[in-house]
Amino acid sequence: MTSIDRSQHDKLANAIRSLAMDGVEQAKSGHPGLPMGAADVATVLFTRVMNYDAADPRWPDRDRFVLSAGHGSMLLYALLYLTGVPGMELDDLKKFRQLESKTPGHPENFMTAGIETTTGPLGQGLATAVGMAMAERMLAAEFGKKVVDHHTYVLASDGDLMEGISHEAIALAGHQKLNKLIVMWDDNGISIDGPLTISDSVDQVARFKACGWRSERVDGHDPEAIEAAIRRAQKSNKPTMIACKTVIGFGAPKKAGTSKAHGEPLGAEELAAAKKALGITGGPFEVAADVLKAWRGFGAAGVAAHKEWKERFAALSERKRTEFERRLAHKLPAKLDKVILAHKKALIASPVTIATRKASELALDVIEPVMPELVMGSADLTPSNNTRAKGAEDFTPKTPKGRYVRYGIREHAMAAAMNGITLHGGFRTGGGTFLVFADYARPSMRLAALMGLPVVYVMTHDSIGLGEDGPTHQPVEQIASLRCMPNMHVFRPADAIETAEAWQFALENSKGPTVLALSRQNLAQLRTDATATNRSAKGGYELLAAEGGKAQVSLFASGSELEIAVAARKLLAEKGVRARVVSVPSLELLLAQDEATQSAIIGSAPIKIAIEAGVRFGWDAVIGHDGGFIGMHSFGASGPYKDVYKHFGITPDAVVEAAMKRHNA
Amino acid sequence: MTSIDRSQHDKLANAIRSLAMDGVEQAKSGHPGLPMGAADVATVLFTRVMNYDAADPRWPDRDRFVLSAGHGSMLLYALLYLTGVPGMELDDLKKFRQLESKTPGHPENFMTAGIETTTGPLGQGLATAVGMAMAERMLAAEFGKKVVDHHTYVLASDGDLMEGISHEAIALAGHQKLNKLIVMWDDNGISIDGPLTISDSVDQVARFKACGWRSERVDGHDPEAIEAAIRRAQKSNKPTMIACKTVIGFGAPKKAGTSKAHGEPLGAEELAAAKKALGITGGPFEVAADVLKAWRGFGAAGVAAHKEWKERFAALSERKRTEFERRLAHKLPAKLDKVILAHKKALIASPVTIATRKASELALDVIEPVMPELVMGSADLTPSNNTRAKGAEDFTPKTPKGRYVRYGIREHAMAAAMNGITLHGGFRTGGGTFLVFADYARPSMRLAALMGLPVVYVMTHDSIGLGEDGPTHQPVEQIASLRCMPNMHVFRPADAIETAEAWQFALENSKGPTVLALSRQNLAQLRTDATATNRSAKGGYELLAAEGGKAQVSLFASGSELEIAVAARKLLAEKGVRARVVSVPSLELLLAQDEATQSAIIGSAPIKIAIEAGVRFGWDAVIGHDGGFIGMHSFGASGPYKDVYKHFGITPDAVVEAAMKRHNA
Repeated sequence: MTSIDRSQHDKLANAIRSLAMDGVEQAKSGHPGLPMGAADVATVLFTRVMNYDAADPRWPDRDRFVLSAGHGSMLLYALLYLTGVPGMELDDLKKFRQLESKTPGHPENFMTAGIETTTGPLGQGLATAVGMAMAERMLAAEFGKKVVDHHTYVLASDGDLMEGISHEAIALAGHQKLNKLIVMWDDNGISIDGPLTISDSVDQVARFKACGWRSERVDGHDPEAIEAAIRRAQKSNKPTMIACKTVIGFGAPKKAGTSKAHGEPLGAEELAAAKKALGITGGPFEVAADVLKAWRGFGAAGVAAHKEWKERFAALSERKRTEFERRLAHKLPAKLDKVILAHKKALIASPVTIATRKASELALDVIEPVMPELVMGSADLTPSNNTRAKGAEDFTPKTPKGRYVRYGIREHAMAAAMNGITLHGGFRTGGGTFLVFADYARPSMRLAALMGLPVVYVMTHDSIGLGEDGPTHQPVEQIASLRCMPNMHVFRPADAIETAEAWQFALENSKGPTVLALSRQNLAQLRTDATATNRSAKGGYELLAAEGGKAQVSLFASGSELEIAVAARKLLAEKGVRARVVSVPSLELLLAQDEATQSAIIGSAPIKIAIEAGVRFGWDAVIGHDGGFIGMHSFGASGPYKDVYKHFGITPDAVVEAAMKRHNA
Repeated sequence: MTSIDRSQHDKLANAIRSLAMDGVEQAKSGHPGLPMGAADVATVLFTRVMNYDAADPRWPDRDRFVLSAGHGSMLLYALLYLTGVPGMELDDLKKFRQLESKTPGHPENFMTAGIETTTGPLGQGLATAVGMAMAERMLAAEFGKKVVDHHTYVLASDGDLMEGISHEAIALAGHQKLNKLIVMWDDNGISIDGPLTISDSVDQVARFKACGWRSERVDGHDPEAIEAAIRRAQKSNKPTMIACKTVIGFGAPKKAGTSKAHGEPLGAEELAAAKKALGITGGPFEVAADVLKAWRGFGAAGVAAHKEWKERFAALSERKRTEFERRLAHKLPAKLDKVILAHKKALIASPVTIATRKASELALDVIEPVMPELVMGSADLTPSNNTRAKGAEDFTPKTPKGRYVRYGIREHAMAAAMNGITLHGGFRTGGGTFLVFADYARPSMRLAALMGLPVVYVMTHDSIGLGEDGPTHQPVEQIASLRCMPNMHVFRPADAIETAEAWQFALENSKGPTVLALSRQNLAQLRTDATATNRSAKGGYELLAAEGGKAQVSLFASGSELEIAVAARKLLAEKGVRARVVSVPSLELLLAQDEATQSAIIGSAPIKIAIEAGVRFGWDAVIGHDGGFIGMHSFGASGPYKDVYKHFGITPDAVVEAAMKRHNA
């Protein structure tokens, strides 16, 4: 045990409380209750337990700390300042919740050094931490415990444990026996509506045990007890949840222990009274010099360990060092372009009529051998998503080098864990489910887009083309709903070549996530060229020009409907109407091109028809209000897929009719 | 206990197995494993336990049966046929998974009588059943146990219990002590990827106990044990989960107990062997006459109870009968229109500058007194969502007449429970959360849209206008992502009058759900008229005409940006440019009007600008590719909301600039 006496501990913890109160008060907005209640837990972590070097918050082998209860952001900002993370000054704390500050309302890892992940939407931090702990184990298995050996600590609130994603996350962590994951639950018994007893009566300790965790209760204001519990957790072969009984707004005489301490400034009077009760002197944002000095000492306590780590790292073979650095920098392997081009050429030489989900598997078969950092998985739909390439090995407690994760029927935790795997560093990752179940994973996908994490979602069964499973399983609006998300790229490739190009785009884009929407049904190979250029990368391109003169009709289609466009073009030609076909594997990417590029691709044919087995929403930007749209106007229906297509009128004949109606008007 | 001997039970259960195998085989698609494995459990429920009258599957006091594991739909179809639900014939079973049949791939309550809810997306049935059990308790408290006294039974699979929503649902049910909810878990240890042990190790019995349930294990192929467990459950003061250990594909010699029995036809050989092993004779879809007769007897066993119920119902006061019937028919109270019109007139007489979330509360204050069936609630954001009207009482085990539900931080289960409350009958319902967290609830919202359930989502903090909480909490794409969902209506009212009209639309629309996207910040009241006509009900209308001649510019806006449009119109007038302002509280509703109505509202001004603090996606249908859009092109940012609006250029000046650029071009 560390020798920090209680009075010193209290001073350290009260510095957090003081800054948190002042920050919220100055912003006239924010959450003082959690930082004040959890200050003791956080102080134990950052002064006695965690291995970190505040001067270098990117040290690869640091212990991770995830504030899942992101609304308590002032706790984190106070810690970054007190421990001395470069760039976090008192002035930053004073700008809490102001535009472009390093101290936004919820922790944003892209705004502030030292923040491991963006949190706020409840449950996300916890589930993301599960991915971090998985990545730690995988990376340690590959590079050795000498350079990868750290814990992931989470501070979670009642809300984190009420959200459904928490079940998926803890069941996954328990199953994987992620013993280096330690969750501190801030058990303060208060939520926004009042005492937690009005909405919850779960025995969380028993619940975690049922999910394969160690779990125990401690007094969240007793530093010795907290530390002892963590030491026990560190020795366990299971993940641990420590229920820390705390008082929200600890120290505030009137508001402590009530929901009034949760989400609004204390007010000048209560703030002053709280500081008095806690024995805090000095003005707003003042930290006594000796207290700051002590905190800075803890922030630098890991310098020696960091130095030793550097020495151990330097002792690795050059090959290992280079690979480790490449991987941490998210640099792609040099051979990637080459194998994808070779794959495209092989497809041109021997065209295939296969589902794009199968085409994705073929792409993975060539990518994985040159990309050891690619971690794939599926939410229990491996045989349907085709996410498991030749020679893949499962990631299990006994096979930590495995790169294939059996996520179980847990789309949400899968997406969050993929964020964590990516944030941890050392890996790129992708996971599969049915496209319609993107809805289950959406909050985590949004965080990937917000954080700019290059996660790949392999989402198969991408339309009514899945047939018999019916409308509950047929995505109709999912593609549109994902296209409208900032920084999310959606590809719906039409054949095996476009599928390879979509994979290439997804891997080359290091700044955001990509959805691959893939068919269940077989599709003809329509592309007849294979150059090094990724033709899908501008979102759209002319697949077939009009023959015999200027195009009278432009037909736009994505994915499985591209062959309908090709067939319609032929039928129109028989009627003497010249049509071109534009493949649009990524509508929003096409709309993100400059106007000249867009114009060139969209073209100037007077009649524009889009064909997509989804809703029209978004297509007006290409075809206009008066353009024709052959697609879905309702939910789908259960039946063999060819019947379903006919039933909803998504056929070459319907395209021809829409074009001729306009042609003859 | 009932006196059905084992050999008779086996014949009854095997009839289910036989039809399920044949249905899947004929369709060449489907899931035989669950019906075969769970046939004993289902047989016990439908022959010994449940109180129902197959001839009238709409009898209000029937026991509910929810097949949460919707992929096992042949189980349900077989039961409907065997018990004799009108309209389900052998021919329907033969059309399993064919277009427009009564036997789609997953159970669809809108296609088939006798199906309580549409299932398939895992976890939804379980969480919906929680709402049904809540509604039963509420309705019993109001009308008495003589006419409302039934159980809700759920058959759930491993997948149902792995999905996160299951945690929210069982925690809510345990907290509410919904003792008439009984969940039969089909514990077959198999998922699509293989044995469940590759992805899960949760002790489900312990987990349910931790969440306040009774829970026990039984042999799922022992009818006596199953029945005894259910009898114990019926006496409990808690909800009960019975883990029924079963063999997936029970009876299939080679595939039983493996994932090969799960989701594909057995194949002719295995099917024949299974029938032989089970002692089933006769050709495909043949049920021995004595077995069918026995089943029909059970289907009619509730006739007497149903008759007695009718007598008890007839003995109620006329007032109670009329009210019960009105409520079950989802007919609105006669006074509703009147109080809303009076409310609008009062607002015109005394205009208010308030947030639309507050305006929603004012609307509820006048609606709730005349609409006793309205059940409101919030996912722990009551003081933020303003969902709790004056005089509302909480729904708790001790106050079952309460109409306000404290859902806890459980958006997903809230949305599913609202589906269940609506499906049960007797209530209309609405629930609140932040708009950005629509993402957490989306799968259940989609089912509401698919089933056509008139649920109301009160989603506040509807844009960057929430300010300091930052991009994790600022919806940017949520409005677009909900607009593109079939049968979902999204209203983003601009002031207190439009908010009242949005509520009116939501309540009058009995065929689908409505999202009310409401502001955190105060908004001026812009409407100056109050007629009985709901001007918002066509999605858009001209708020201000151009002055001094034909409009040169049309400005379209929703919600909080309408006042920006009004201000821009004034600035443009100062520059001699004539602009009109069109309020668009519901874009997709406007686009659903006939072309003439749309044209009249959209107008023919050469310059079109839309203003909305969200993404452009969808607006091109109104403004065209060359129209101006003042809104969001990225995620938001943390800061005081006026700063955030300026930062992203959503201001009257920006509107003027966009208009003048086009005017001068």
